[in-house]
Amino acid sequence: MRDSWKITGETFSNDTESIMRNGNIYQIANGYMGYRGTLDEFGAEERVAVTLAGVFDRVGDAWREPVNAPNGGFTQVIIDGEPVSARHTAVLRHSQTLNLRNASFERETVYKTRGKTVTIASSRFLSAQHPNLGVIRYSVRCDKAADLGISTGIDGNIWDLNGPHLGDLRTERHEDILLVSAVTSEASKIVAVAEGIAFGVGRERDCDGSLRLVEFAAEAGKTYSLTKFFAVHTEFDRIGLAAADAAVESVRRAKALGYDACLAAHNDCWAEKWRLCDVAIEGDEAAQQALRYSIFQLLIAAPIAGSQNSISARALSGQVYKGAIFWDTEMFMLPFFLHTYPEKAVELLRYRIRTLDGARRKALTEGAGFKGAFYAWESQETGDDACTYFNIGDPLTKRDLRTHFRDKQVHVSGDVAIAMWEYFKLTGDDSLLLQGGAEVILECARFYYSYAYFKKDKNRYEILDVIGPDEYHERVNNNAFTNMVAKATFEIANATAEYLAQNHPKAFRALIDKLAIAQELPLFVDAAKLLYVPEPDPKTGLIEQFEGYFNLTDTTIEELKAKKIHPDEYLGAGQGLAVPTKVIKQADVVMMLNLFKDRYSKEVKRANWEYYEPRTEHGSSLSPCAYAMLAAEFGNLDVAYRYFMKTAKIDLEARYNIYVGTTFTGGSHPAANGGAWMAAVFGFGGVSADETHVAIAPRLYRNWKSLRFNLAYKGDSFTVTVAQDAVEITGAAGNAAARSFVVWGEAAPCAPGKSLVIKRDKKVA
Amino acid sequence: MRDSWKITGETFSNDTESIMRNGNIYQIANGYMGYRGTLDEFGAEERVAVTLAGVFDRVGDAWREPVNAPNGGFTQVIIDGEPVSARHTAVLRHSQTLNLRNASFERETVYKTRGKTVTIASSRFLSAQHPNLGVIRYSVRCDKAADLGISTGIDGNIWDLNGPHLGDLRTERHEDILLVSAVTSEASKIVAVAEGIAFGVGRERDCDGSLRLVEFAAEAGKTYSLTKFFAVHTEFDRIGLAAADAAVESVRRAKALGYDACLAAHNDCWAEKWRLCDVAIEGDEAAQQALRYSIFQLLIAAPIAGSQNSISARALSGQVYKGAIFWDTEMFMLPFFLHTYPEKAVELLRYRIRTLDGARRKALTEGAGFKGAFYAWESQETGDDACTYFNIGDPLTKRDLRTHFRDKQVHVSGDVAIAMWEYFKLTGDDSLLLQGGAEVILECARFYYSYAYFKKDKNRYEILDVIGPDEYHERVNNNAFTNMVAKATFEIANATAEYLAQNHPKAFRALIDKLAIAQELPLFVDAAKLLYVPEPDPKTGLIEQFEGYFNLTDTTIEELKAKKIHPDEYLGAGQGLAVPTKVIKQADVVMMLNLFKDRYSKEVKRANWEYYEPRTEHGSSLSPCAYAMLAAEFGNLDVAYRYFMKTAKIDLEARYNIYVGTTFTGGSHPAANGGAWMAAVFGFGGVSADETHVAIAPRLYRNWKSLRFNLAYKGDSFTVTVAQDAVEITGAAGNAAARSFVVWGEAAPCAPGKSLVIKRDKKVA
Repeated sequence: MRDSWKITGETFSNDTESIMRNGNIYQIANGYMGYRGTLDEFGAEERVAVTLAGVFDRVGDAWREPVNAPNGGFTQVIIDGEPVSARHTAVLRHSQTLNLRNASFERETVYKTRGKTVTIASSRFLSAQHPNLGVIRYSVRCDKAADLGISTGIDGNIWDLNGPHLGDLRTERHEDILLVSAVTSEASKIVAVAEGIAFGVGRERDCDGSLRLVEFAAEAGKTYSLTKFFAVHTEFDRIGLAAADAAVESVRRAKALGYDACLAAHNDCWAEKWRLCDVAIEGDEAAQQALRYSIFQLLIAAPIAGSQNSISARALSGQVYKGAIFWDTEMFMLPFFLHTYPEKAVELLRYRIRTLDGARRKALTEGAGFKGAFYAWESQETGDDACTYFNIGDPLTKRDLRTHFRDKQVHVSGDVAIAMWEYFKLTGDDSLLLQGGAEVILECARFYYSYAYFKKDKNRYEILDVIGPDEYHERVNNNAFTNMVAKATFEIANATAEYLAQNHPKAFRALIDKLAIAQELPLFVDAAKLLYVPEPDPKTGLIEQFEGYFNLTDTTIEELKAKKIHPDEYLGAGQGLAVPTKVIKQADVVMMLNLFKDRYSKEVKRANWEYYEPRTEHGSSLSPCAYAMLAAEFGNLDVAYRYFMKTAKIDLEARYNIYVGTTFTGGSHPAANGGAWMAAVFGFGGVSADETHVAIAPRLYRNWKSLRFNLAYKGDSFTVTVAQDAVEITGAAGNAAARSFVVWGEAAPCAPGKSLVIKRDKKVA
Repeated sequence: MRDSWKITGETFSNDTESIMRNGNIYQIANGYMGYRGTLDEFGAEERVAVTLAGVFDRVGDAWREPVNAPNGGFTQVIIDGEPVSARHTAVLRHSQTLNLRNASFERETVYKTRGKTVTIASSRFLSAQHPNLGVIRYSVRCDKAADLGISTGIDGNIWDLNGPHLGDLRTERHEDILLVSAVTSEASKIVAVAEGIAFGVGRERDCDGSLRLVEFAAEAGKTYSLTKFFAVHTEFDRIGLAAADAAVESVRRAKALGYDACLAAHNDCWAEKWRLCDVAIEGDEAAQQALRYSIFQLLIAAPIAGSQNSISARALSGQVYKGAIFWDTEMFMLPFFLHTYPEKAVELLRYRIRTLDGARRKALTEGAGFKGAFYAWESQETGDDACTYFNIGDPLTKRDLRTHFRDKQVHVSGDVAIAMWEYFKLTGDDSLLLQGGAEVILECARFYYSYAYFKKDKNRYEILDVIGPDEYHERVNNNAFTNMVAKATFEIANATAEYLAQNHPKAFRALIDKLAIAQELPLFVDAAKLLYVPEPDPKTGLIEQFEGYFNLTDTTIEELKAKKIHPDEYLGAGQGLAVPTKVIKQADVVMMLNLFKDRYSKEVKRANWEYYEPRTEHGSSLSPCAYAMLAAEFGNLDVAYRYFMKTAKIDLEARYNIYVGTTFTGGSHPAANGGAWMAAVFGFGGVSADETHVAIAPRLYRNWKSLRFNLAYKGDSFTVTVAQDAVEITGAAGNAAARSFVVWGEAAPCAPGKSLVIKRDKKVA
């Protein structure tokens, strides 16, 4: 029977692509750093990476990207003078396991070399309690007596996409602790890695700078175990100690605590994460594992407390997409955190507050110059846009293609504003609004007002010249998704102003004065009323994705792809094959129908799903979950399930393309992971919450016996168990008040410490 | 000494490209049809073409283009059974001459074959009096006695770019007249060519269908002359007789009249054309010839009376650019006709009136759908747009590039409206306004109103998402040229309404009712006032070509071209090399400063000229004349002269590129020809006329002794002779009234039959 808590591989494939894909599948992380699922003895060539959250650097004209730290987890056995590696030594058996329960990686490999059988096992975790810390237990056994060496320490040979980012690498020893410190190229800030081991045998001597070699005569059949602690600190951290000292100190303390204590604290943290966030699917092991794996990906990427960091599009799996934060976070990951783990949602949102000035700078400098906040399409630590105007390489000409992701994908500002408001609606906590959230919202509305045009003869505002979620069609007018997001932003800005005026008049006045925005507030009211959003056709129910979409050429995705000259050629960017056609990259109208599901009928949802689905290439990992949720919404559960599994398995199977144009895009997909959670809980679970209540209208997939998940709502916690014909809601004992639930249309208040069961025939048990 | 009335070539170059280029240089035409400058014995392979004005056809999915008629001018000598051709027979001597005075083409070739020397001479003209008619005198002489055959008749093997357009070719004989009639592929209309000869000797027999063979024993040294008449009539003509009968009848009558009478009538017509239109430059033979040649090109292309045809971008030199009419006509050719030959200007403008419905259809179907008249970027006989959305082939991928010439080059409507109003201003004749011109103007204003957006926070209308004259930068906002043209269109619409309301109230009311436009007229007043046009920077005087232009990358044209992968690759279309740079294809701001020269100071003109000139690639033949005119305007006569010569010699030297992308663009350049006239008369002559007077502020190029030209103004005729320090104006005796001239700022009324001389020291002689 499959253990849905474990991902296990029983073979070792010695090719670069498998090693790259396994590096993603088996990665661990703790919000501070990621460690790819590579073997202890691997190095830069095997794409080992210790990727740091929120630490960015740029070298020359290359892309700015996150910094990978020197690898404090390196260990390699040398038997009779011969280094052992899965790449170069005969592998008799190999297994590796990712343990989702505590985010640990284990491997065991049996090698045959020089007539001897050597077994190497290790277990690795990045501490969830002390996020600078990584801990490894490593053991080796040889069937015959042998001279063994263990080379271990810090590998300063770093895999970078656009590096090297670290210069001036220095190795020091602080008693038995190794320290490598280096300086980033752009900001000249220190990145320090310390490492210490506990190993009872052998003689230790330095070799090769930042590595040490422990030599001993191994007895036949005896297992030798080594414990290894490494810590990464950087000048980007907000800490008291200098990075190098802090790193040494972290290792020293961990050593003093010992492996078991470190692991126990780590496990406690993870138990709490799963208590909050797990979703149990009874009756479908494949779905269970895929969903749990997806949630796991979100949990390992969630920013550490107080960091005000966000989650980038490839999380901590490496440097792909510049380590940048996209709309992915607000639209696809945030709902999971908001509904299960609001303290992480706070970090994500504080990140947008922290980078508001960057968004202001972008607004001023894009196009004709705008007011307010135009959030970066690819946001790093300052909020200035890391997205280039030539963001995709053309394999045909080797030139970079002009794309308008940066300057025209204006929906990102509204996505942020909506997310900010959702937090307030679902938590009831206005502190974030008061600490910058309201400012973000008003500045986003201000941006849209300065971006919008008025069409006098039609008496309406329009949003022109944008890219919607479907990036194959650039520079379109009145994209339904974008216009609706902008309209919602104006509504939210108006609601924010109203709320603050009533509840925090002094803070409101101060904010209005600070922004000098008083005269613009009535304009937002006007715009909320008169901003045009393409309506469903009265006959067909279809919503035109943008002006002129319905006039484009109808073709199939297969026909289109058959025209490719090069397999990696990009289908958009103005001259791409998809541009003149109705083929879209990803959910766009369908995305809107999910985001604003209360505003559209089931019939409209179905009609648009059926129209757009065959025309969607799903060239983005953001797409399948939207089709899953909407199909569940109008009741086609079979296709909903198919799309749910597609989004849930994306990183587990890691079968995605690793190139778009000439750009390497391998890595994990936290937005799709968040989409899997949404498809399960919003889609099949039928959950939708607003400021007044949580509605639950489940439509369970036929093979599922039950679906159990937790919900955080207005500061309280609930466990919901959905069966085919009944819903059970249990309020935590510590909840502050009874909260309103509406199940299958029936009001069902849930008091602290109480359970209630609602059957589909609407009798409350 | 160079004879500026003759273009002579003294060699024959037997390569396809020379033959192609000479076909352009030596072409003749008469407004009804063109005949390329090819030799009598040439055929489709040598790009012989008899291109018909206003006759269009489409085959399959290929471009719609003008129809080439079967060649009634074909003649070939056969000596001792061997056909003689410059391609395959040894050429001892060859000369060919284009006579500008009467648009005739002559050639004389001495061949050596089979030990004999054969001299072939011919002279060809297309009747300016009877435009269906072509006449050729052909002679042959052999130095030794020989058996000669003359194969002559109608060559039905037609060179087409996107043909074949003519099907069902039938040959008949009407007594001694050959007739080929055929049917166009799309409209199934008849195109008929008749041919008859006068030749006193030999036996005639049919050979090869539409050709006849005349055989005779030639005496040594004796010249045998043949006269040949051919006529083209089509069902597109508006005539009484059926096309075939009409063609036969035309030939029959011409034969009856005889060669000399036909030629004399033709010559009379040409004498009158030159009397009206010639410009004489004393002291600069090269300039004189180039300018005369340019004027010649315009005269041969000018539409025949009553045709309501216009002049296409490659005139009658072939099928290039689909035989379509562009803004070239109104902005570059019309001024010449308006100032010298207004009856031709009327045809050009009536063409736009005739095709107004096509412009209305285009407005309704482009983009979001607009009101009013959006004239075709490439207009054929209906005014529907022949421009495709994929108008340039990419030599790198062999795909067609999406270009926005058709849907975004909205200035074309204003160009038409401005031209319509100019006619009224300069002729004082309101008949055209009343017969559709006013309707055109109002519908163009209506189009711009429905295209424009209002920016509430800036209290201005803007014109978004256009291509200005510089086609390398597509989809730009607030292009200075386009916005100014739109603003002028609103002004003209308001002036039109005012004029008609006062002077033709009944007709005005009828028009307003017909268009149901009464409620929109106040909007045009609002738009004329509030439409934004980028202003000169107060410090530098620079006008930004479009929003964001100044932020583009600065590079040199050489650097840019060095990046080309393929010599023919197009620099625009969204991903072209020029797109992210300040390199522009052609005059844009500079074009605006010419068109609206009264609105800008000399300093602004100079500043912008100097800024944009080094950034202009002159990838369009429309560009150099604009730089010439503006340089003359602010007094840099040396560069003005250089650009004047560039535009004036374009077709004479025919050194232009013949491919843009993968598209064949060879042929003549009547817009540049019109630009040469403008550079001479507006630029160096300093002429600018409006409804109140003709201003003349000459700035003669230093090598020119004098410049003499005619002006038509308010129905009267004047001859102006500009010397370095004096201007002489002579009013025709038949003029109706004294007209106001202002020379070097001094008022100088010129009465009928009177001359006046104004010296630069401003004393009127």
